[in-house]
Amino acid sequence: MPKQFTEEEVIERIEDMRRRRPRFEDQHITMSHGAGGKASRQLVEGMIVPRLENPELAALGDAAVLSIDGAAPGQAAGRLAFTTDAFVVQPIRFPGGSIGELAVNGTVNDLAVSGARPLWLAAALILEEGLAADVLAAEIDAMAGAARNAGVTIVAGDTKVVQRGKADELYITTTGVGAVGAATAMAPGLVRPGDKVIVSGTIGDHGIAIMLARGELDIDADVRSDTQPLWPLVDATLHACGEALHCMRDATRGGVATVLNEIALATRLGVVIDEQRLPLRPEVVGAGEILGIDPLYVANEGKLVAFVAPEHADAAVEAMRALPAGASAEIIGEVRDEPEGRVLGRTTFGGHRMIDMLVGDPLPRIC
Amino acid sequence: MPKQFTEEEVIERIEDMRRRRPRFEDQHITMSHGAGGKASRQLVEGMIVPRLENPELAALGDAAVLSIDGAAPGQAAGRLAFTTDAFVVQPIRFPGGSIGELAVNGTVNDLAVSGARPLWLAAALILEEGLAADVLAAEIDAMAGAARNAGVTIVAGDTKVVQRGKADELYITTTGVGAVGAATAMAPGLVRPGDKVIVSGTIGDHGIAIMLARGELDIDADVRSDTQPLWPLVDATLHACGEALHCMRDATRGGVATVLNEIALATRLGVVIDEQRLPLRPEVVGAGEILGIDPLYVANEGKLVAFVAPEHADAAVEAMRALPAGASAEIIGEVRDEPEGRVLGRTTFGGHRMIDMLVGDPLPRIC
Repeated sequence: MPKQFTEEEVIERIEDMRRRRPRFEDQHITMSHGAGGKASRQLVEGMIVPRLENPELAALGDAAVLSIDGAAPGQAAGRLAFTTDAFVVQPIRFPGGSIGELAVNGTVNDLAVSGARPLWLAAALILEEGLAADVLAAEIDAMAGAARNAGVTIVAGDTKVVQRGKADELYITTTGVGAVGAATAMAPGLVRPGDKVIVSGTIGDHGIAIMLARGELDIDADVRSDTQPLWPLVDATLHACGEALHCMRDATRGGVATVLNEIALATRLGVVIDEQRLPLRPEVVGAGEILGIDPLYVANEGKLVAFVAPEHADAAVEAMRALPAGASAEIIGEVRDEPEGRVLGRTTFGGHRMIDMLVGDPLPRIC
Repeated sequence: MPKQFTEEEVIERIEDMRRRRPRFEDQHITMSHGAGGKASRQLVEGMIVPRLENPELAALGDAAVLSIDGAAPGQAAGRLAFTTDAFVVQPIRFPGGSIGELAVNGTVNDLAVSGARPLWLAAALILEEGLAADVLAAEIDAMAGAARNAGVTIVAGDTKVVQRGKADELYITTTGVGAVGAATAMAPGLVRPGDKVIVSGTIGDHGIAIMLARGELDIDADVRSDTQPLWPLVDATLHACGEALHCMRDATRGGVATVLNEIALATRLGVVIDEQRLPLRPEVVGAGEILGIDPLYVANEGKLVAFVAPEHADAAVEAMRALPAGASAEIIGEVRDEPEGRVLGRTTFGGHRMIDMLVGDPLPRIC
């Protein structure tokens, strides 16, 4: 149980931790750089993005949205979303899914939460020498099934093999292209004080399922990954809310806490959530307590966080709940003018706690 | 020196080796499956592609060409090329380039030889825990420089970290989107008997440079990778030849021999090359002889093979030679009605040899 702070103490405590551009000052890559938290942010924003400086990349969205108007004279017009993700999850099979299914859904969802209908995927495989052929075949089948289920086509691919001990069974990088609707506008910059924060369902399922599947702990809990495609949920919410849907993110590595922090940082607004309203499976809460992990920081693979104008928030929740993927959708909090750039949680005990970016890596190779 | 056969003997010898759909019957993945030759073809065409069945993927081109007309109502129209490649080259730095530069140029070139102007790249990094920060920074800089040089923007990315011993320094998957010009039509199916076969420059430089950089052999030869972007060369050739440019491929893994075999197989035509006309650096010939490797099978990273109607072949060579990347362009052979689906080389001794698909993997992790 973290120490409880008053709202003022929390603000004071993190006053000077914010608004600095993250600096990358490490000498070597550590597992923390892959965890989606502070170290990841330092690596990506402090070192990689400045070297590749361009506005699309610097936006750090789930997908780049590209205008192809005039790209080829007389040919192309419109907006495309474009996103890539490497999947290195271990174990490669786990309750509720496997790396192949995850690789399709993960990229499909980065397109979806950018407001883009997923169209095409490319898949690049890095295979470890000695991988059993039937293991590979099962993952290709999982990709094919997930693609059919999500309504996308895998149109390009590549396969490389590295020596035994230079990979871990297989890694899959999927890259997706989607079509952004003419009227769709979603971005952190559109989030306003008063917006309601909605999560589309129970949180932490994927990450806890992976931790349990590793078998390092003798916990017998029935927790399954929530890996699923989110476009139907996004599409329904867009129809229900139109422009009142200001921003969406899928809550993968780093969990819901990381998404909330990213939006607070980007907007310089405050996000206050009511922790009692977080949709949580009891098994996830129980396993999280034993593992010492807060589900707010745990990866999801089929859940999104939406920021919606208050007068449309109920309609958004209703639209989500009408679909299986959104059956447990809840309003969990709201956006405020302050604390600037910070996320606060109202705990079940009536106090406040700072919900900061993740430090370290409690869950390596979760996706 | 391979045994010399007459043309008839060669045809008889491989009569029943062809036209069968490749079958994947192995129990485990071996390095050969990553080499770009027969085993790769068995894996990709015999196992992966059938499971993901769709016409774009089954075309097995360097890039999928997608029509986005109507993808989003009122929005998108035109044709895009889309391609992905994982780079696992070792060592990551070598004379003439490094993995970061290769990852940009390799994907840019798959777009280019599909007749697409390269526009955007996505890059996904898999980093090994413990990688030195300055090594990573150097590769990000190499990517940024190569992107500038090729006129593309890296608009999306992802970074994952795996434990020490689960990768080899870093792997980079790049995925590219390009715009296909309205008038551009290139495909194996357009290749006709009589077409001239052109290579854009010296062959085998990249693969030999990598082999020498590994330092396993005590050969002191100044061979540098030819990694470079090919769009200017493609663009110039398209302008010079128009529709007479029937097909292009870049000759990466498996080298020029593999490209010729792919086209022969796809068209059921024969390709006959004059080995005396192959542009070869003396250092590459020398190193290849010591290594026991035929440069025809060695990867290039800045060379293309073009199939051009005979009346435009000289114009194509002239257009290529006007650019530094095509200074050594040569007509190396022609397409014939027969031998059906086969590649023959006229050797320097006046005989013929069968130039078959690569078997095994003489050059693992060359790109």
